[in-house]
Amino acid sequence: MATVFRGGSFVAWADEPVTALVVEDGLVVSHREGPADEVVELAGRCVIPGFVDSHTHLVFAGDRSEEFEARLAGIPYEAGGIHATVAATRAAGTAQLTASAERLAAEALRSGTTTLEVKSGYGLTVDDERRLLEVAGTITPHTTFLGAHVPDGDGYVALVTGPMLDACAPLATAADAFCEAGAFDVDECREVLLAAQARGLDLHLHANQLGHGGGVQLAAELGALSADHCTHLSDADVVALRDASVTAVLVPAAEFSTFSPYAPARKLLDAGVTVALATDCNPGTSFTTSMPFVIALAVRMQQLSPVEALRAATEGGAAALGQSDVGHLRLGARADLVVIDAPSPTHLAYRPGVDLVRQVWRGGQRLR
Amino acid sequence: MATVFRGGSFVAWADEPVTALVVEDGLVVSHREGPADEVVELAGRCVIPGFVDSHTHLVFAGDRSEEFEARLAGIPYEAGGIHATVAATRAAGTAQLTASAERLAAEALRSGTTTLEVKSGYGLTVDDERRLLEVAGTITPHTTFLGAHVPDGDGYVALVTGPMLDACAPLATAADAFCEAGAFDVDECREVLLAAQARGLDLHLHANQLGHGGGVQLAAELGALSADHCTHLSDADVVALRDASVTAVLVPAAEFSTFSPYAPARKLLDAGVTVALATDCNPGTSFTTSMPFVIALAVRMQQLSPVEALRAATEGGAAALGQSDVGHLRLGARADLVVIDAPSPTHLAYRPGVDLVRQVWRGGQRLR
Repeated sequence: MATVFRGGSFVAWADEPVTALVVEDGLVVSHREGPADEVVELAGRCVIPGFVDSHTHLVFAGDRSEEFEARLAGIPYEAGGIHATVAATRAAGTAQLTASAERLAAEALRSGTTTLEVKSGYGLTVDDERRLLEVAGTITPHTTFLGAHVPDGDGYVALVTGPMLDACAPLATAADAFCEAGAFDVDECREVLLAAQARGLDLHLHANQLGHGGGVQLAAELGALSADHCTHLSDADVVALRDASVTAVLVPAAEFSTFSPYAPARKLLDAGVTVALATDCNPGTSFTTSMPFVIALAVRMQQLSPVEALRAATEGGAAALGQSDVGHLRLGARADLVVIDAPSPTHLAYRPGVDLVRQVWRGGQRLR
Repeated sequence: MATVFRGGSFVAWADEPVTALVVEDGLVVSHREGPADEVVELAGRCVIPGFVDSHTHLVFAGDRSEEFEARLAGIPYEAGGIHATVAATRAAGTAQLTASAERLAAEALRSGTTTLEVKSGYGLTVDDERRLLEVAGTITPHTTFLGAHVPDGDGYVALVTGPMLDACAPLATAADAFCEAGAFDVDECREVLLAAQARGLDLHLHANQLGHGGGVQLAAELGALSADHCTHLSDADVVALRDASVTAVLVPAAEFSTFSPYAPARKLLDAGVTVALATDCNPGTSFTTSMPFVIALAVRMQQLSPVEALRAATEGGAAALGQSDVGHLRLGARADLVVIDAPSPTHLAYRPGVDLVRQVWRGGQRLR
């Protein structure tokens, strides 16, 4: 069964011109019009790759809208707020956690996200971290073990690298740690990530979010797929990311919500670093699933062009996850695509807050 | 036929507690549960008044996404860009203009806007301004004559106050002018607005957008319903707005898009001025129809609490239009309401970019 998309424009990140898109067996098989069983008439609309959201914390219970209001009233954000979510998450049943995560994943899908990374990190016990990864595994194949989210008592790093990793590694494709004053220092993060790497997990690292530190250098040293946040970077940090081919995952919606400076996206791109945009969806600092909103912010606040922002939200996200078959619509790509009600991707930034997503397809199946 | 909304929370701007909402003959008739023909189970969701968008320029042709990209690249905005829209609008057929305006009005409705003001102002000839108001009248009863948008040749003010007003006054409920260096000065705006007032039209005024000036004082002098933009205000301007009961219509999405300072919303509210939030939807400086996006910006960038922002986006907008039956859900109000997929209106700001609107009702009829 072949489906052809025609009569519009196409962003495929391909070298050759794309005048139509033919999808067969869930893959992109042609960039020119050909015979098909099904025709999608675009009527001038634009087709873009589905968004790849490479950094989310979707599995949790509870609500931190009161903390949000307190922050608006001038109380600065500190990591302490995470503990409220940990307590609520531990207390929640697995069915409740699954329902909440499924609801947010469906919301993300409606706004065009076809690939989603999901982290654990609100359990902080062996059983709870395992439980969160089991829930994450029901909504995505991209599951990240983030036991090293915040320290929880004496000997916590030994717990994470020992029994917690034993329980969680089989359920995760990657590991992550929060490298920051008040969370884990560089040596602790190295210990956690090396243990995870020894189990065959890919690596991410929350790095340089709240201040300068050694996180980005550690990500480069260990060959992590991504260094996430990257708000405070030295020139040497930028060079290290580029030279080690570590993708910088930027999360401007978190910076919008927490009154933080925006990460130097322009500087990173100009230096040749691969940049990804992600939502950082979580109940404390960035409770959004909307990649179009993140793109609008990156364009307005981080001096990316609309096309650069879209590329970071698609192919950049795929790089952060080590996936080569999504985030683009080149021949052989998985047919994950979005039809937007606009003639070009510029409108994702030009029309902020407007739901422009008309169709969402994943693996050649229409899901919206 | 009575409909009861129950099992959730209610923002009605009422003095008494609201435990349920009963709607009959298109009006809110009770705040307590009672017998009904139809039951809407809210399942913990929140009901808010429909948004009142009191400042839009929805009737136009063409697209200024290239100007948007140029501005991102560092070219400052000047009013000149309006002429591109004027040329495209004059060249467009009325059916095309109507279809475009209907599409944007439908988009606004889907995001919860149940009352919409629409201005002319991209015609600037007698025939074209009349045509734009005819189109506006097909989508809303709140039509504003904005012939004095930008000057178009010698003797333009005489044209506006003479034959253009003759043609347009019967089609409009209000008049507006753009009081700014490069557009019309205070004396010209006074002449236009006095002529309109003599025809029984309500008054609005684009005031103090790009710099300090006499616009706000003129709005107060003439008893205008609203002074719109209000980006640059002296202390005396704030006092004048309060003392003359002129609503300050703020448009943070335009400031987001044009890299302008944000209007001093906090200062206005603290001084006792009635504040409205609006989209300023137009293709040059604010191409959004989303009141939730405007609320999120007002909370993040203008120091309004989520509840203050919602009030400005509902009852504030109604004040700007001189309407007492919308923007709230007190007894006797028109049953214009939105069911959001959240337990409180805080989530409109806490969850930026997310489409939280689940149901939209206008005059007791469900439209989404």
